[in-house]
Amino acid sequence: MRIVAERAGVAVSSVSRVLSGHEDVSSVMRNRVLDAVAAIGYERDLLAQSLRTGATYSVGFVAIDVANPVIALNAAGAESLFRDAGYGLLISSSGGDPDLDLHYLRHFEQRRVDGMILSLAHENNPDTLALLRQLSTPLALIDRTLPREIPASAVLHDHATGIDAAVADLAGRGHTRFALVNGAPHVRPSKERARALRRAVRAAGGEPVTVKARAYSAEHGYTTTMSFLAARPRPTVLFVGGNQILAGALRALAEEGVRIPEDMEVVTFDKVALSDFLRPPLGFVTRDPRGAGRLAAELLLEQFDGAEPRTVTVPTAYEPAPR
Amino acid sequence: MRIVAERAGVAVSSVSRVLSGHEDVSSVMRNRVLDAVAAIGYERDLLAQSLRTGATYSVGFVAIDVANPVIALNAAGAESLFRDAGYGLLISSSGGDPDLDLHYLRHFEQRRVDGMILSLAHENNPDTLALLRQLSTPLALIDRTLPREIPASAVLHDHATGIDAAVADLAGRGHTRFALVNGAPHVRPSKERARALRRAVRAAGGEPVTVKARAYSAEHGYTTTMSFLAARPRPTVLFVGGNQILAGALRALAEEGVRIPEDMEVVTFDKVALSDFLRPPLGFVTRDPRGAGRLAAELLLEQFDGAEPRTVTVPTAYEPAPR
Repeated sequence: MRIVAERAGVAVSSVSRVLSGHEDVSSVMRNRVLDAVAAIGYERDLLAQSLRTGATYSVGFVAIDVANPVIALNAAGAESLFRDAGYGLLISSSGGDPDLDLHYLRHFEQRRVDGMILSLAHENNPDTLALLRQLSTPLALIDRTLPREIPASAVLHDHATGIDAAVADLAGRGHTRFALVNGAPHVRPSKERARALRRAVRAAGGEPVTVKARAYSAEHGYTTTMSFLAARPRPTVLFVGGNQILAGALRALAEEGVRIPEDMEVVTFDKVALSDFLRPPLGFVTRDPRGAGRLAAELLLEQFDGAEPRTVTVPTAYEPAPR
Repeated sequence: MRIVAERAGVAVSSVSRVLSGHEDVSSVMRNRVLDAVAAIGYERDLLAQSLRTGATYSVGFVAIDVANPVIALNAAGAESLFRDAGYGLLISSSGGDPDLDLHYLRHFEQRRVDGMILSLAHENNPDTLALLRQLSTPLALIDRTLPREIPASAVLHDHATGIDAAVADLAGRGHTRFALVNGAPHVRPSKERARALRRAVRAAGGEPVTVKARAYSAEHGYTTTMSFLAARPRPTVLFVGGNQILAGALRALAEEGVRIPEDMEVVTFDKVALSDFLRPPLGFVTRDPRGAGRLAAELLLEQFDGAEPRTVTVPTAYEPAPR
């Protein structure tokens, strides 16, 4: 600031007032200082600034699996917005372990992050909820729900829009027996997908839907698909709760020689870069994970500016299997 | 520290000495303080600690595209190691733009990160190199090379191991005309892949390899594959420089009705979760991106402990297309 002050020909205190956004500064003074700043490439020292303002210009992302393409796109979307706003994004990856949710919540709290984006491994874990009740850090959830007394913004996917369209298509082709290999049970996407699928199939006059929820893993995809294939009568439509599960489900279907779509239709959640080139042909219920990440960052930045937490619901869509 | 001191019945200065790892502390005193810490759940305040030690317990990852599954796995691998060591990982995503390399290097420098992991968009950009020459921050590169005067640890992929095996297989099946849709030209993987492929095909007695490097994008994959398909005689083996490029290349091959493997063999770099279910059948040159990320984090932690930067080379492998 001394160097800027010398160059601008003003007092150090004036430089400080301009750079801290003080209102009581003339526009002449402001321009003079900012020109000097631009001229000599002065850059705020974020750590020193943290000490003055209490802000760390950092946000923590408590993510269920940062190597999952959907979560990676959430992170990329959030990061692109934070970049422009001058915030750094700290990542984490719980791998579905609620103890790691807790670990990262504590870690980010210790780091005094200005906010957190949460895609928790478990949204009903009592220890996590107890910790969140104590936190005063602004929160933005991505497709998670928390008890009302914990204030948090949220980006929620409306899973029913895509699922309703898928069931309408498949029931219209005469299918009545639907099954869902669902992901981890204690997170909103799994709960909502099971609820929406059951409701849509019932409305279409189908049989009660078989649902098995366990984990976002290929192993669960494999063993649960095998168990569905052993049922008599077999379901004729298999919904698959995500990419990791899909790898195991497709292996089971191939091993059992199930012909798709002749013997069974398969609909999976989320399309990734190379999904168009997967065989057998699959239907997709899609969402915009990069957009959801951006939106979560926006809701957090709003809170930093003093806004109340709010919830935004974004739609899903259905893309039928190529025929 | 006052609360810990009261509970332990010792002076605040003694607590400080124990917690800062001072050597001149009796084991009785040490145990007394640590028991008190454990009893009351004292946790280091990282920001306050940063002020004392200069360390921020954070590492910045200058990543070319965090939504690319390979880079996401790098990040997940590094993050898992940093988690255990108490470091936070800040991510970024340049999207291949060298100006964003610079932006993030400056941003992380301002944040006083303890180290950086670099998968730069452009390893020869003069502005980036000028900035890196000034930095004293420990660096670990993932498959990038910098001029010798810039000290940096590096995890390098030996692209030749996988490419040699692929060319031996395909030349053994009578192929002589190879082409490569290469990624961004100014990064090590592209340079090494072109070099290794040219050398291997020459050694196998094949014709000079056609290489077009431009970007890690589906659009480049599409247009460049189209241009290769227009050549007479056509290449009979197409190497594809990564997942994003592959999406465009497969679209071009499908539109032109190229039969694989009858008309052309396709080998792509990197296998991701669902790669086994891609059609047409593809060969793969594979590496371990999660392991590379972990290794980069290890090399950085070594430097934090005072070790000199060092380079570790890790192999690639070949997995032929299913027949």
